[in-house]
Amino acid sequence: MKFIEGGITAARGFKAGGVNAGIKAGRTKNDLALIASDVPCAAAGLFTRNKVKAAPVQLDIETVRKGSARAIIANSGNANACAPNDMENARKMQKLAAEALGISADEVLVGSTGVIGVEINIAAIEKGLPALAASLSDEAAGSDEAAKAIMTTDTKKKEQAAEFEIGGRTVKLGGISKGSGMIHPNMGTMLCYLTTDCAIDCVTLKKVLKEVCDVTFNRISVDGDTSTNDSLIILANGMAGNEPVIENTEGYAVFKEALLAVCTDLARRMAADGEGAKHLITCTVAGCESEEKAEILSKSVIGSSLTKAAVFGCDANWGRVLCALGYSGADFDPLKVDVDFVSSAGRIGVCRQGKGLVFDEDKALEILKQDEVIIDINMNEGEAAVTCWGCDLTYDYVKINGDYRT
Amino acid sequence: MKFIEGGITAARGFKAGGVNAGIKAGRTKNDLALIASDVPCAAAGLFTRNKVKAAPVQLDIETVRKGSARAIIANSGNANACAPNDMENARKMQKLAAEALGISADEVLVGSTGVIGVEINIAAIEKGLPALAASLSDEAAGSDEAAKAIMTTDTKKKEQAAEFEIGGRTVKLGGISKGSGMIHPNMGTMLCYLTTDCAIDCVTLKKVLKEVCDVTFNRISVDGDTSTNDSLIILANGMAGNEPVIENTEGYAVFKEALLAVCTDLARRMAADGEGAKHLITCTVAGCESEEKAEILSKSVIGSSLTKAAVFGCDANWGRVLCALGYSGADFDPLKVDVDFVSSAGRIGVCRQGKGLVFDEDKALEILKQDEVIIDINMNEGEAAVTCWGCDLTYDYVKINGDYRT
Repeated sequence: MKFIEGGITAARGFKAGGVNAGIKAGRTKNDLALIASDVPCAAAGLFTRNKVKAAPVQLDIETVRKGSARAIIANSGNANACAPNDMENARKMQKLAAEALGISADEVLVGSTGVIGVEINIAAIEKGLPALAASLSDEAAGSDEAAKAIMTTDTKKKEQAAEFEIGGRTVKLGGISKGSGMIHPNMGTMLCYLTTDCAIDCVTLKKVLKEVCDVTFNRISVDGDTSTNDSLIILANGMAGNEPVIENTEGYAVFKEALLAVCTDLARRMAADGEGAKHLITCTVAGCESEEKAEILSKSVIGSSLTKAAVFGCDANWGRVLCALGYSGADFDPLKVDVDFVSSAGRIGVCRQGKGLVFDEDKALEILKQDEVIIDINMNEGEAAVTCWGCDLTYDYVKINGDYRT
Repeated sequence: MKFIEGGITAARGFKAGGVNAGIKAGRTKNDLALIASDVPCAAAGLFTRNKVKAAPVQLDIETVRKGSARAIIANSGNANACAPNDMENARKMQKLAAEALGISADEVLVGSTGVIGVEINIAAIEKGLPALAASLSDEAAGSDEAAKAIMTTDTKKKEQAAEFEIGGRTVKLGGISKGSGMIHPNMGTMLCYLTTDCAIDCVTLKKVLKEVCDVTFNRISVDGDTSTNDSLIILANGMAGNEPVIENTEGYAVFKEALLAVCTDLARRMAADGEGAKHLITCTVAGCESEEKAEILSKSVIGSSLTKAAVFGCDANWGRVLCALGYSGADFDPLKVDVDFVSSAGRIGVCRQGKGLVFDEDKALEILKQDEVIIDINMNEGEAAVTCWGCDLTYDYVKINGDYRT
């Protein structure tokens, strides 16, 4: 498996595009994306567990149930959640995209992200659709424009693609995602769209998507807020011509490895580009009795406001790490815990068997100044290890969210 | 019942004091407090549920088990948690205070708050004890000095006291507390010391303390971080001369009412003075099926970083309130939810039956600019109602915690 260029259009038979449709007055960035396959696809999706689900999420849950789809239309600037006529407008978006592509409405998935509670500007979307359809391209530029169109407070567009072999056939897989705020591990916490030319049925596709989501997107957090609009969708059009992938085969393992690599990369980028973030925080909890427990502990650390603020301040305040482990709800012996801080500038031990070490503050500062800070924890009670990703809590997070609507 | 002056020294037979012992080099504020009763007291305490418990918490859990105590020594500037010789030093503090008061060590409770993982400066405490013992006073000034001595990042000292009658006898109850950071509802989330001259046995005292704590201190949150040092302790010395309070009597109801009033007041002050806070956020969830569910929903709203940042920005972003209700884990019908924002400047409805209302932004801004903002939610599914308290997320929270150790 190797990473390749092309993002969501890397796989054969997929086109993408994006335009500014003027959904939010005064904004000139792309706000409407379209992804389409030349042929029907097996489809699988995972959606927010928030009890308050945006209309497009409710609609997609229905659409994806039959296991096939062919296109995705998505907008930024409005979440189309808790808003007047939200379901009517989601269906209208679906219908408009289907008409532009000459396919049936139930082959189109719909995504929205942005402000909650305000009616979406459906007239702008209708007006923008001809230009959007015209922008479709199977080149990397199409993926770029689509990736830009789903960004909200993201500062970087997020694309990744991979190439691998199944049964002698070259298969490709790629995706785009957006993150930034309302990011918390609970099933596909964001918008992420993936395409592949792999031949795989929708049941197997859903299974592998769930397995990978649980250890990638469900292991990141920016702010502990699970959005109303989170969606992770994959379309597989089979154009690689491989023997269909089935469970418990080498092909399944190869496909899963590639999906895991692409999703890990996108998940890390989402955490690193969390609202206002200056540091990616990677928390590894090893030496644990079980993976389940390691995940609870690691998520508690990346979710701790105090730990996040300390990393922002490049302050090696490991007491806050111990504190976050302690209130996670997991049972453990505090007197066995070791903590190191690690980055490209080196490694420093700060806690052994639950007690503080005397350490070189200058070296710790140098380590904590790097873009990615690894909090490396050993519980010294077993063999299981889990990694979760978060980001620091900064002035800019407060600034961005103190005045989000205007 | 009426509120009175005097804080922790309001009740008969209690003295308090505070001094600067130089526990943290360079700080001139009080950092060591002592509270003592002239006679033995019934004692009850509630302590952090954090798995990582500071040494003084572990020691107090043992001490309070026998149901009696007579004094409390507490310091700020060092949490005495996860630190070398932490238990030895906690016992030393206990012993030093006992010697200064001429009582036995197992009559002394010990509290610490501050940085985790650094050995406490026990020499400074030993050196400061004679001045501390000499500072003891049964006047309001004694309570003031003790209240100041337990402050860390608090900007205001927190004292309250009440007077009420039980069986024709005047009874008094008062307390001091500190909050600010690492504040999250999970059993006595802070330091709070209460004294009363009420005659009440330790079993009844523990029962009423638990009942009141569950609806006051356990319903506030500043940052979702449950500290390693949280302690809520009450000493009752019986000097009011009332018939001992027992369950299911009018006396119990009167005592509980006063304890509830004092603890509600202290809890609100702790939320309002949360680290960096500019607004007290009061979230009332009414019309709920059960109190348990209402509490889960309300806590999710006050804990939401996005909602907290929106209140800081005086942004009536009720979509974030709906989102926080939705990911709380409680089951409900989003299409029944009503949300109003309320303050001393008035009331404005922003959401009815789960959909946004068109509202006057200027009026909303005026309401949100006040010191206390009430988020008033009606689930329209039952009769239960619960109020929780939090604060906004500000630049200052990030600043305070980005560089806490230095």
